[in-house]
Amino acid sequence: MADKKKKVRTFSSDHSKGQKRPLSDNQFIEGIKNGDQTILAKAITLIESTKKQDEVLSDEILNGFLKLSGNSIRIGITGVPGVGKSTFIEKLGLLLIKKGRKVAVLTVDPSSTVSKGSILGDKTRMPELLKSDNAFIRPTPTNNNLGGVAHKTRESIILCEAAGFDVVLVETVGVGQSETAVHGMVDFFLLLKLAGAGDDLQGIKRGIIELADVIAINKADGANLEIAKQEASIFKRALGLFPPKQNGWEPQVTYCSALHDEGIQELWSLIDEFNIKTKKNATFHKKREEQLQNWMLEIVEQTIKKNFYSNQKVKILQDQLLEKVLSKTISPKQAADMLLSSFDIKP
Amino acid sequence: MADKKKKVRTFSSDHSKGQKRPLSDNQFIEGIKNGDQTILAKAITLIESTKKQDEVLSDEILNGFLKLSGNSIRIGITGVPGVGKSTFIEKLGLLLIKKGRKVAVLTVDPSSTVSKGSILGDKTRMPELLKSDNAFIRPTPTNNNLGGVAHKTRESIILCEAAGFDVVLVETVGVGQSETAVHGMVDFFLLLKLAGAGDDLQGIKRGIIELADVIAINKADGANLEIAKQEASIFKRALGLFPPKQNGWEPQVTYCSALHDEGIQELWSLIDEFNIKTKKNATFHKKREEQLQNWMLEIVEQTIKKNFYSNQKVKILQDQLLEKVLSKTISPKQAADMLLSSFDIKP
Repeated sequence: MADKKKKVRTFSSDHSKGQKRPLSDNQFIEGIKNGDQTILAKAITLIESTKKQDEVLSDEILNGFLKLSGNSIRIGITGVPGVGKSTFIEKLGLLLIKKGRKVAVLTVDPSSTVSKGSILGDKTRMPELLKSDNAFIRPTPTNNNLGGVAHKTRESIILCEAAGFDVVLVETVGVGQSETAVHGMVDFFLLLKLAGAGDDLQGIKRGIIELADVIAINKADGANLEIAKQEASIFKRALGLFPPKQNGWEPQVTYCSALHDEGIQELWSLIDEFNIKTKKNATFHKKREEQLQNWMLEIVEQTIKKNFYSNQKVKILQDQLLEKVLSKTISPKQAADMLLSSFDIKP
Repeated sequence: MADKKKKVRTFSSDHSKGQKRPLSDNQFIEGIKNGDQTILAKAITLIESTKKQDEVLSDEILNGFLKLSGNSIRIGITGVPGVGKSTFIEKLGLLLIKKGRKVAVLTVDPSSTVSKGSILGDKTRMPELLKSDNAFIRPTPTNNNLGGVAHKTRESIILCEAAGFDVVLVETVGVGQSETAVHGMVDFFLLLKLAGAGDDLQGIKRGIIELADVIAINKADGANLEIAKQEASIFKRALGLFPPKQNGWEPQVTYCSALHDEGIQELWSLIDEFNIKTKKNATFHKKREEQLQNWMLEIVEQTIKKNFYSNQKVKILQDQLLEKVLSKTISPKQAADMLLSSFDIKP
C-alpha cells in the first residue's frame, strides 16, 4: 500500500489522459509486484515517455525493482518480415505457458516510424497468446532512435521480470541495426529464416547470421520440408566456417513449422541446453554483467556525443568543415581539431 | 628547394637521432614529391611520432599533400599468420611493377606489441620486392591503439600517394579489430584463406568474411589444389547467403598459389574489374568521401571520449559506480547520470 506520508509522484505522460487519477510510485510498484498487467503496461509507457517530468518517477519505479530483476531467460528473436515471427512466437509462447512459464513479448521495430504505424505493434497478430493471463505482449515504438530503444527495452525487461515473467522474448525485424542492439540485451539470440526463399531473396543484413545462437528455418512444411532440410545443412556448413563462440556454445541450425506447430519443442530444447551449458560454465552470468556495464557506458557515451553535437556552434561549424575536408582544403585532423576547439576541448 | 626566409620547422623525434641536420618542412615536401623513399620513410616516422612538438610539422607536411592525394587504388589485405601474406604481397607487387605501377605496402599489426617486435615488420619477408625502386615497404607499430593506427595509416597512405605510388597495399593480421579499421580506409578488401586448413582451424574472426570483396584461397598447389577448389565453392555458397553489397559488387571467391606464382594475375583482374565497376557507378568516389567524413568524426569522438575518461574524478567514480551497478544497488542510468554530472554534463 502507498505510504500517505511519502511524497506521491504522479505520471504526467499523454498516455494517462482520460484516466481519473494518475498512479503513484507505490501503486506502480505494488501493482507490478502483484503481476497486474494493466499497471505493468502503464509503467512501460511511463518509462518510454520522453517528458522530463516523468523521468524521476520512472527512475524510482525501475530502481525499486533492480534487486528483483534477472530471473528470466531473455531471448532475442529476429527475422525478415514474412518469415512468420508472430506465428512462431505465439506457438512458442503457448508451449511455454503449458510448461508453467510466464511469457513476456517485447518488440523493437525500427521500421515503425517509416511505415507510420508499427507492423509489429498489432496485437492481433498473436490472438491465442493474447488470451492467456500468463502472457504479456508489448510493442515499443522506436522513433528511429535505436540507442534510446535499447535502453527502454532493457528497462522494460526488468519490469517484466519484476512482474514475474520468467521468459522474455524480445522480437525485432531483421532489417537494420536493431539486431545488434537486441543481441546486447538478451542471453540467447534466435534467427528465423524462411524455407525455400532462395539464398539472396531474404534480405538478411550481413552480420546478423553470426549473432545467432540458433538459426531456425521456419515454414518447413509440405514441399518446403525437404528444401528446409537442405538449407539447414548449407547453414551448418556456413556456421562451421567460424570458430566456436567465447561461451563455448556452437551455434545450431534447425527447422520448424510454426503454422503446423512442428519443431517448436525441439527448438526449445536447444535453448534449454544453451541455458544449462552457459550457466554451468558461468558465461551466462558474465554476459549479464558485461551487458550491465555496457548499458551504463552506452548512456554515458551517447550523452557526451549528444551534448557535443547538439551544441549550436558545433552544428554550424561541422558542415562548413566537412565541406573543406571533402574539397581537400583542410585535413580531417585539422577539421576535427577546429571542431573540438569550438567546444573548448583541447585536441 | 627550401625557402630560407620561411621559418624552418625541424623534426625532433627519436628516429632522427644520429642525423646531422634535421629536415625542414620544405625538404620533406620536395623529397616526397620527388619520390625519395628515404625522406618518405622519415616523414611517416614523423607522422607516427607521439611527441607534441612533432605535430605541427607533421600536420604541415600532410596538408601540403592533400590535393595531391587520392590517385591510387587502396587495397586492404588480411589473413591469419601462416596464410602466406608476405609471399602473396611480394608476388602481387612484382606483377604490378612489371605492369608499370608503383607499389607501397603498409602494414597494421596489432599483435606487434604482444610479441615484442612486429611479425609483419620484418622487411626480409619480401626480399625481391624490397630490391625494386618502385616498391616501398613500411610496417606500422600500433602500440595497441587501433584508433590511433587507423589515423596514422590513413596519413601514410596520403604521403605514399603524394610520392607517386599508385597502388597502396595495406596489410593486417586477421586476428582482431584491425580488419574493420583497415576496411574503413581502403577501396577494396581482400581476405586470404589457407587451402586445406579445415573449417575451424583458421581462427578467422567472425565478421571478417563479410568485409571481403574477394576471398582468395592461397597455397592452392599440389594435393591442396583440389581441396582449395572445393573450399572455394563452399565459400561461394556461404557468400551467396548474403545480399549484394550497396556498391553493386558481388564478392568473389578465387584460389591461388603465391609460392608458385599461380592465380595472381587472375586475382588482379578481379580487382581491376571492381575498380572499373565502382568508378562507373560512382560508389568508389562516394566511399572515399564517406571515409574522409568518418576520419574526421572518429578523431572528434575519440578525443571527446578520451577527454572524458581521462578525467581524474571520472576515473575514480567509474569503478565505484560500476560496482554498485553490478550489485544492483543503483541502475545503469543512475550510474551514468552520476558519472556525467561529475564532469558537469547534464544527463
